[in-house]
Amino acid sequence: MSFTATATDGEARAGVLRTSHGEVPTPAFMPVGTKGTVKGLDPERLRELGTTILLGNTYHLHFRPGAAAIAKLGGLHRFMGWDGPILTDSGGFQVFSLRDTILAADDESVTFRSVYDGEAARFTPELAAEIQGLLGSDVAMCLDICLPAGAAREKLALAAERTTLWAERQLAAPRGDGQLLFGIAQGGTDSELRRRSIEEIAALGFDGHALGGLSVGEDRELMLDTIAWAAPLLPSEKPRYFMGIGDPAGILEVVERGIDMFDCVLPTRLGRTGSALTWDGRLNLRNARFAGDSAPLQDGCPCRACARFSRAYLRHLVNQQELLGLVLLSEHNVRFLLDLVAEARGAIERGELAAFKTAALERLAATPSEGLDSA
Amino acid sequence: MSFTATATDGEARAGVLRTSHGEVPTPAFMPVGTKGTVKGLDPERLRELGTTILLGNTYHLHFRPGAAAIAKLGGLHRFMGWDGPILTDSGGFQVFSLRDTILAADDESVTFRSVYDGEAARFTPELAAEIQGLLGSDVAMCLDICLPAGAAREKLALAAERTTLWAERQLAAPRGDGQLLFGIAQGGTDSELRRRSIEEIAALGFDGHALGGLSVGEDRELMLDTIAWAAPLLPSEKPRYFMGIGDPAGILEVVERGIDMFDCVLPTRLGRTGSALTWDGRLNLRNARFAGDSAPLQDGCPCRACARFSRAYLRHLVNQQELLGLVLLSEHNVRFLLDLVAEARGAIERGELAAFKTAALERLAATPSEGLDSA
Repeated sequence: MSFTATATDGEARAGVLRTSHGEVPTPAFMPVGTKGTVKGLDPERLRELGTTILLGNTYHLHFRPGAAAIAKLGGLHRFMGWDGPILTDSGGFQVFSLRDTILAADDESVTFRSVYDGEAARFTPELAAEIQGLLGSDVAMCLDICLPAGAAREKLALAAERTTLWAERQLAAPRGDGQLLFGIAQGGTDSELRRRSIEEIAALGFDGHALGGLSVGEDRELMLDTIAWAAPLLPSEKPRYFMGIGDPAGILEVVERGIDMFDCVLPTRLGRTGSALTWDGRLNLRNARFAGDSAPLQDGCPCRACARFSRAYLRHLVNQQELLGLVLLSEHNVRFLLDLVAEARGAIERGELAAFKTAALERLAATPSEGLDSA
Repeated sequence: MSFTATATDGEARAGVLRTSHGEVPTPAFMPVGTKGTVKGLDPERLRELGTTILLGNTYHLHFRPGAAAIAKLGGLHRFMGWDGPILTDSGGFQVFSLRDTILAADDESVTFRSVYDGEAARFTPELAAEIQGLLGSDVAMCLDICLPAGAAREKLALAAERTTLWAERQLAAPRGDGQLLFGIAQGGTDSELRRRSIEEIAALGFDGHALGGLSVGEDRELMLDTIAWAAPLLPSEKPRYFMGIGDPAGILEVVERGIDMFDCVLPTRLGRTGSALTWDGRLNLRNARFAGDSAPLQDGCPCRACARFSRAYLRHLVNQQELLGLVLLSEHNVRFLLDLVAEARGAIERGELAAFKTAALERLAATPSEGLDSA
């Protein structure tokens, strides 16, 4: 088995995911390396920050520079200089979230215009398997059909049905050596469709499962309620992955509901736009109140931005659009989330997650809830 | 004395500059930290790359965030997290190279429009001293009047005359604790004017001297010829600084002519535009020939970009406008120049600079000469 739950606390679990490139303690936050790099952060720094597993985007790497080119250069790990575990998504989210680019979709495949050159391209489950095999990720994901919130029930039903068909095909396709494959359940927030999809996907015997088609524009409470009843339906002996959540409060909410893995561009995107995640809420460094502020972003944070620089300096860098500012804020934000998740893991092991979460949410109260996707 | 020449080889010298924040072996290349940051590189990395002294820009820091603000935050070293030596320029080069912004100039002061907000601002030698005192740099520079190549002789003469007047005033103004002050000789490439300016400035007893008003658009050979006869006229017991040269060949040329210190934005600017300095010439990573190239930028280079990444990966990052690509190329380029200068220093100590230079220029032949300024 590639996964062991080592402690539980309510629905929450602490565990270990074993991959070809090492073990990943769960719950695990995966920084997003969209195009073969976590924006602004080199692999050495990511390791120092406590990163245990990265996400890579099949859609982007397929088009630039291409999976075959990466395979020739030794695979994605070697290409990007990261020797730890990598999970690759399937490209499905990108294809279906860029709905304007879809040219045709049927049981066989989806055809769409590439955002890179506008040329028509076609994805099938077999191609998703092939690309991820060439990339050589530790965990591959099934190509699924992800609809936005508010999609009509018959469309949701068809998407879930095709997602199951495609899961069966991808499972039958060749995959990389030692590569794990996770299935994705769809069904939106519809109880019957979601339950049916989970049953169908779980029956196929994947190494792990994801709840897809959530965090796609629906109300936050509805998303969390859906996770609350849907996550426990996923096999408990396999890891559970929720795609696209990365705000501190949201992470604690999904961990409490039994999710083991999650990813989001939030920490690096916030960093690039001049904002920092802290226990005093989300700080917009452009705010004039930081102009003379000699304090670090977050007292006690061991990241480089906090150990060596003041809010005033970081504000100056952000205002002057200096690269270093974006890099330092991204570092801090990734560290903040990784530390939060590590603390949550400790709380689960002690059976104290509820108390930890309540205290954390109080401290985070100034932070607006936000559910950015991993596109 | 703040400077000791420890070896000479022809006109070239190896030496040590002693500052409040440590010793600087010379010849020394100073990466440019324009706005309180060497673009994309944090201080820890700069130290690892072998940086011994940085340059900070008075003009930019005066307007953003302001010298008083930096002083309140503990001075420029603390503000930017760099505990090594810093040289600050005087702002004169920026004011006079942005000629369209000059509103008035007389013996007393120069008035110009700030590039930040278009408001009128006024620089005097006393203000240049005050700003640099507040910044707390280890080496301050005199406010000088720098004209572009081709300026009429009477204008050159007036600029040199005022530069001397201003040098006297700045020398009489209060300066930072332990802060060294360098004078700047003007006179363009005019033998008589340049000699007179050097005599006047050298007579004032500064801690070091710079040749200003060169690398401002004149022919490269003319610039090098001028340095060849002008540098030896500067007092040999004081360090000699040439402002704004940073291409590998140019560095060797000025070192051979007796220059001890120099600065340039070239390595970081090239990095941000996707080019790398190597012994195979200047590589434009956008070139398709690097798409499958698994070699490092430069065989044997110990920088992170070379130790961990292929040209193909760096090309991918550059093409995708990824922050990490710009950072890694900047790191490599700074390292390349620092290593080159360290090797030149060794060659001077062994009395082999001429042979070292000849061999290096041959290897660098594919690199176009280029004299970017430090603006």
